[in-house]
Amino acid sequence: MVQQTEFNLIAKKRGFHLVTDEILKSITPLPEKGLLNLFIKHTSAGLTINENADPDVRTDFESIFNDLIPENLPYLVHTIEGPDDMPAHIKSSLVGSSVQIPITNHQLNLGTWQGVYLCEFRNHGGSRKVVATVYF
Amino acid sequence: MVQQTEFNLIAKKRGFHLVTDEILKSITPLPEKGLLNLFIKHTSAGLTINENADPDVRTDFESIFNDLIPENLPYLVHTIEGPDDMPAHIKSSLVGSSVQIPITNHQLNLGTWQGVYLCEFRNHGGSRKVVATVYF
Amino acid sequence: MVQQTEFNLIAKKRGFHLVTDEILKSITPLPEKGLLNLFIKHTSAGLTINENADPDVRTDFESIFNDLIPENLPYLVHTIEGPDDMPAHIKSSLVGSSVQIPITNHQLNLGTWQGVYLCEFRNHGGSRKVVATVYF
Repeated sequence: MVQQTEFNLIAKKRGFHLVTDEILKSITPLPEKGLLNLFIKHTSAGLTINENADPDVRTDFESIFNDLIPENLPYLVHTIEGPDDMPAHIKSSLVGSSVQIPITNHQLNLGTWQGVYLCEFRNHGGSRKVVATVYF
Repeated sequence: MVQQTEFNLIAKKRGFHLVTDEILKSITPLPEKGLLNLFIKHTSAGLTINENADPDVRTDFESIFNDLIPENLPYLVHTIEGPDDMPAHIKSSLVGSSVQIPITNHQLNLGTWQGVYLCEFRNHGGSRKVVATVYF
Repeated sequence: MVQQTEFNLIAKKRGFHLVTDEILKSITPLPEKGLLNLFIKHTSAGLTINENADPDVRTDFESIFNDLIPENLPYLVHTIEGPDDMPAHIKSSLVGSSVQIPITNHQLNLGTWQGVYLCEFRNHGGSRKVVATVYF
């Protein structure tokens, strides 16, 4: 069986943001056992799972991703939407547009230190649409 | 319930290719609601979801990935299959070997600007096998 | 229908390790047709699918990932858990915390050269928890 909900994540500034709670508030109660797929309907933002405790980790994520895929690379062709746009497309494919999380005992079966990150790669990305699909 | 189809994507040159339509022609009609998993059975090509409009984005993807994982790194050990081979393995793990896409109202529930890319990382990769699994 | 098993992968040294057989021994027999999700409950290790034959590929994976995300980057803030920690978080988001593999005829429908890698990014990561979810 499949349950599906589409919702918006509140606009965030550029960077990595812990959104586990915002997502759980946006979806229906979880079944006893199954899998949750979260899919982001954008090509300049992504979803990933990482450390949920120290906000410095998210700061370092932003620094390292900017270092890895710098803006204003001289060979770029797709530059019309600004210097943050093409790097945002690449970064979103590096982290991916969806995450899957096992559901056990009506809860997300994440590790102790895991949470869901919204990876906002644009300077002004606005609200982001997510589709949650639960199968059980 | 699960529907599964295995098919071949026509051989493409090295680079990033929009294959949403080629995939939709290769699979059975989509159910009302569910999830599509596309899995590529190769270790030197990948699948990702990104911008579907401007072909320059795919050109820049190729340039940036080549910049990120250059050929002929002096410390490589696995060089027997040519300079494009080991970078292809790394790139395929960076984008991943599968994508999941929600299905809503018998259609892929992609964002306006999203499409599926075949990421062909070999100079002469040939036809690529994909397994499509739909659960609903 | 959904089957779910949680198990531990034996502690591995830092690097990329082929664990397809170790995983298959840890889960129940596979159904005729479906999909397997493997999810790692950690933020400094990951799962990916890549070449299953030449161990040199795994050696080069370790070298290239260390080159891509070096230790001791001068701008890092989250350094309290050692120089291998923050790079491990980044690397785990680059490969991802889960893989999906189609199941066909009661077997993993991997390509000839594909296997599942445990990507151990810590110097002393210890045993790693994995949740296997099969839907069919």
